[in-house]
Amino acid sequence: MAGNRRIVLAQRPTGMPTAEDFRLETADVPAPGEGEVLLRARWLSLDPYMRGRMSAAKSYAKPVEIGEAMTGGTVSEVVESRAPGLSKGDMVVGLGGWQEYAVLPGREVQKIDPGAFPPSYALGVLGMPGLTAYVGLLDIGQPKAGETVVVSAAAGAVGSLVGQIARIKGCRTVGIAGGPDKCDHVVRTLGFDACVDYKAPDFMDRLREACPDGIDVHFDNVGGDVSDACLSLMNTHGRMPVCGRIANYNDNAPPPGPNKVPMTMGLVLVRRLKIQGFIIFDHAHRAPDFHRDMSQWLREGRIVWREDVVEGLESAPEAFIGLLQGRNLGKLLVRIA
Amino acid sequence: MAGNRRIVLAQRPTGMPTAEDFRLETADVPAPGEGEVLLRARWLSLDPYMRGRMSAAKSYAKPVEIGEAMTGGTVSEVVESRAPGLSKGDMVVGLGGWQEYAVLPGREVQKIDPGAFPPSYALGVLGMPGLTAYVGLLDIGQPKAGETVVVSAAAGAVGSLVGQIARIKGCRTVGIAGGPDKCDHVVRTLGFDACVDYKAPDFMDRLREACPDGIDVHFDNVGGDVSDACLSLMNTHGRMPVCGRIANYNDNAPPPGPNKVPMTMGLVLVRRLKIQGFIIFDHAHRAPDFHRDMSQWLREGRIVWREDVVEGLESAPEAFIGLLQGRNLGKLLVRIA
Repeated sequence: MAGNRRIVLAQRPTGMPTAEDFRLETADVPAPGEGEVLLRARWLSLDPYMRGRMSAAKSYAKPVEIGEAMTGGTVSEVVESRAPGLSKGDMVVGLGGWQEYAVLPGREVQKIDPGAFPPSYALGVLGMPGLTAYVGLLDIGQPKAGETVVVSAAAGAVGSLVGQIARIKGCRTVGIAGGPDKCDHVVRTLGFDACVDYKAPDFMDRLREACPDGIDVHFDNVGGDVSDACLSLMNTHGRMPVCGRIANYNDNAPPPGPNKVPMTMGLVLVRRLKIQGFIIFDHAHRAPDFHRDMSQWLREGRIVWREDVVEGLESAPEAFIGLLQGRNLGKLLVRIA
Repeated sequence: MAGNRRIVLAQRPTGMPTAEDFRLETADVPAPGEGEVLLRARWLSLDPYMRGRMSAAKSYAKPVEIGEAMTGGTVSEVVESRAPGLSKGDMVVGLGGWQEYAVLPGREVQKIDPGAFPPSYALGVLGMPGLTAYVGLLDIGQPKAGETVVVSAAAGAVGSLVGQIARIKGCRTVGIAGGPDKCDHVVRTLGFDACVDYKAPDFMDRLREACPDGIDVHFDNVGGDVSDACLSLMNTHGRMPVCGRIANYNDNAPPPGPNKVPMTMGLVLVRRLKIQGFIIFDHAHRAPDFHRDMSQWLREGRIVWREDVVEGLESAPEAFIGLLQGRNLGKLLVRIA
């Protein structure tokens, strides 16, 4: 059966991806084997980590091959099930990829209760980005009430949740985002104490003003100059969960000098800082705690969740490029009709 | 009463310290006030951290002022006591500085049992360097049996203990040191599994050979290129206690590019590394456990302790410069007649 529209990796990007790196094509709809389900995608999640999968460089997950459908989290409807516990019509979350139809082992998808929250939440506030914010902030950042928590990409999926969880824990919350509109959203809608525009010429001064008592936890979503600026304000015994480094994802070579590693390590030593990278796959055991807490916070109205929705699978490449350029506000999703 | 020979900071060094940065002078022997003791130094400890105190740059401890005696740990005899619990003739450890006589509050010195171990051990294996190795390796590095632990400056005071404690804990222990003589000492006398000469042209290849299963804990004593080499071999979930960065202590400016921070943070993220700086003052609560374990290991002959002794206070500046250049083998001490 033909009719599975999908977006494959046409070539590996050099620097920032372009439309030419992707190709929309139509393939056969796959048939599920024993223990598998055939899924029809309703929502596709677009996330910065996908840039890493487009490269052949060694990483924590294998790259997408040329000609293969781009990887990605999806909320889908079960069209046909040969897996126990899953029936036609069920809504599930899994790694369906950038395509309309996918076959996955039943054990690799999770059923969503469609009555509790909108199904798309399983790709955001109740899914991987939510768990990332929860584990990175609470388990690695270990914020204490009264401390200052700074998070970059504060208008994005993970960052918006980091700040809101920190506020719930009694911290002063300072976001960093690109442009006055995002900063306004972060403070007025998300309830951060402050948000600093990293594109402003006086960014460093404004960041210092926003953190009069220094920074205790810097949840680092972006790396680059923003990260350097935060480092300079870290307090003794500060913690830096390293979640992403979108500032460098499109670099083709190490940036020019000076080499700031000695300065960074000097601060790490003198201020007794902890810098710790994490990947959410390692923290699946925290999912039950996360779901319990986050569901309750949502029901109590203590967490605001904003989605940035684009329509149609064919819009995914441009929307993804926009994500890498910081054009989205909130969790970026593709609705697939 | 005149006759207190001491070495003061004559001027702040630019880059590597020179003899001109120090001045030997004779001052009055100070008189102890109520609660204080007058001490006559027997042993002076020379340690890399002292380079930091010679600079005016903000750090975790205030700098030595121009004209002030250099700071330093000493083992001394109590000459006169106006402090409870301390008597003439007691041997104590404290921060007496680079001088023959010092007055300290009684509560800032600790009495040594002269019968248990040589008194100089209180400045090394049973003192600050020992506690540094113990806390940095066990509490921050958290090595597990079978893992590979790499330590730089492996022939030095802290490094030699890190490797030996790691071996006691069942780890593969790999040292890094400067030159074949030191490497030979580290393997034959200290019992490391391997030691790699960072001055060898094929250092990186040799390090890789010495760590066939990668590195789980890199106890970073030196920073610089040696640290970069270790970083490239770190295993997933590796730990890097950052103890010192002698490679950069004498830098006058950040080294030239490229800027390796993005590459470093990329590895931190992908391999989920933890980099954590520590200063031993924060870990005084571990001193009882440390003393118990280390005394036992010494009595059982499981720890080899090597001292590099120079004679006379006047030798301290040259010996200290040699320490920064890597000339010592084992704990550097000045015996004061």
